[in-house]
Amino acid sequence: MSVSHCLTGDKVAIDAFLDQFDVFLFDCDGVLWSGNHIFPDVPETLDMLRNRGKRLVFVTNNSTKSRQDYKAKFDKAGIQANVEEIFGSSYSAAIYIARILDLPADKKKVYILGESGIEQELASEGIKYCGGTDPNMRRDIEQEDFDALADGSALDPEVGVVLAGLDFHVNYLKLAYGLAYLQRGAVYLATNTDSTLPMSKSFFLGAGGVGAPLVTSFGKEPLSLGKPSQAMLDAVEAKVKMDRSRTCMIGDRLNTDIRFGIDGKLGGTLAVLTGVSKKEEFLADGAETVPAAYVEKLSDLLG
Amino acid sequence: MSVSHCLTGDKVAIDAFLDQFDVFLFDCDGVLWSGNHIFPDVPETLDMLRNRGKRLVFVTNNSTKSRQDYKAKFDKAGIQANVEEIFGSSYSAAIYIARILDLPADKKKVYILGESGIEQELASEGIKYCGGTDPNMRRDIEQEDFDALADGSALDPEVGVVLAGLDFHVNYLKLAYGLAYLQRGAVYLATNTDSTLPMSKSFFLGAGGVGAPLVTSFGKEPLSLGKPSQAMLDAVEAKVKMDRSRTCMIGDRLNTDIRFGIDGKLGGTLAVLTGVSKKEEFLADGAETVPAAYVEKLSDLLG
Repeated sequence: MSVSHCLTGDKVAIDAFLDQFDVFLFDCDGVLWSGNHIFPDVPETLDMLRNRGKRLVFVTNNSTKSRQDYKAKFDKAGIQANVEEIFGSSYSAAIYIARILDLPADKKKVYILGESGIEQELASEGIKYCGGTDPNMRRDIEQEDFDALADGSALDPEVGVVLAGLDFHVNYLKLAYGLAYLQRGAVYLATNTDSTLPMSKSFFLGAGGVGAPLVTSFGKEPLSLGKPSQAMLDAVEAKVKMDRSRTCMIGDRLNTDIRFGIDGKLGGTLAVLTGVSKKEEFLADGAETVPAAYVEKLSDLLG
Repeated sequence: MSVSHCLTGDKVAIDAFLDQFDVFLFDCDGVLWSGNHIFPDVPETLDMLRNRGKRLVFVTNNSTKSRQDYKAKFDKAGIQANVEEIFGSSYSAAIYIARILDLPADKKKVYILGESGIEQELASEGIKYCGGTDPNMRRDIEQEDFDALADGSALDPEVGVVLAGLDFHVNYLKLAYGLAYLQRGAVYLATNTDSTLPMSKSFFLGAGGVGAPLVTSFGKEPLSLGKPSQAMLDAVEAKVKMDRSRTCMIGDRLNTDIRFGIDGKLGGTLAVLTGVSKKEEFLADGAETVPAAYVEKLSDLLG
């Protein structure tokens, strides 16, 4: 049985832990900040890691924002980060489609259920798309749509992928297009399948909720490009040079972040207690997902 | 192991079978018609049963139509039916809420995810509702909505039930309201949970698809008031006087119609082969759901 070590307040243990890794993958919400509240001494902690020569990658399931959008969030929080250090699930999907998925030449277009963040990231990899924020799709479904979807005349024959993410403008028409493409054999991907979205100190529908109609009506699950799916780690690896044995995942959620690192056979995982999971969950006898180490808060790594 | 008997062409067996029952519950699509195509001699078959003194009840999972709306479909098809003979899943839900569910006096309002058929049926039982076709709900969600849903100020304190049905005008705002009411303890009902909707000779998103975001994001399944849920049979029974042992369910789908009759311990089930299920499915060794008898088409009952 694995045991998680507390690093908080133990400078020798912290140094030994950090020395094991060249790359740190960071979850953001619950680690760097909670909503609009920035945790103390986060910039200093990241600076310390960079000064030690560590490579930092911020891995987020947020699919509505592009890396550029997400960078603005870092700026606003007063946390220094480069676009190259940010890895969102939309970008993960774009990398996966462009560099890992082997689509036939005439089936390279992506039908998007989602917002502009997905569009920007697909464009950044030169991938053609339709759906998404297209204003023509923001309307009620009509009988002619049913007919034209059923006989296929409404469909773009180049579409070979359906990519579902968080869409605040979801409607029946957009879902019906997605389902029709899936029924015709499109590859079924999701930026992430988080069932809920933390907002305004409550929980709303996440990408997994908004996309659930396709899962239910099509009868199959998508391949997720977000944590804890290993497809996201494959996508990170397709972009970031890293030795998994010298990479550590830092996160607040056992079932996504820590699971992501363990399944990916990373050299280490570090839990922070400023988010969702409590230490009792992984210190309990028979706990399923146990991080290699934990700190009360990220800045405890400053020693 | 039960064996299904073929009645087609066997007048003696037909008479003996019909004599066992006073009430016949009919599925409609796949039994009386398929889309706009009416099967031959359906009116004559129904007349024959009525002339023998049988009570007929048409049991449909269609939730977008009220009984009155559905009666118009019968009229158009040239099939005689009274509104009292029609039992849709919206009406089933209304009966269930009004006569079976015991709601606190200050929690009797229903939040609807669905179309006017549900509204009409709730109104017919004197049930107050919100959501549904409210034009104020047909818009994008805004930050103020997130805040007002999170702190509850947007919510109607009288709502004690969320009722999800097929909604062609589904959007994030309506789903977010539904989720917020569920999170505050509303009873979770669905008119039906059919994953697909047959339309224009293809399959679109059914009530179970459209409502799937609530299931995924809330993390619980609704009680369905449509076939094969026994709650629908309870609702039929709350309205129609019937002796289950002298009632027969007629339908084309093993996993909904026939399962509905078997689970309800009805006296009999009769499959027709003009719809989804094939006889090979229930004649096979070890078949799970086996109708007591079957005919090639409904009018075979004319002998």
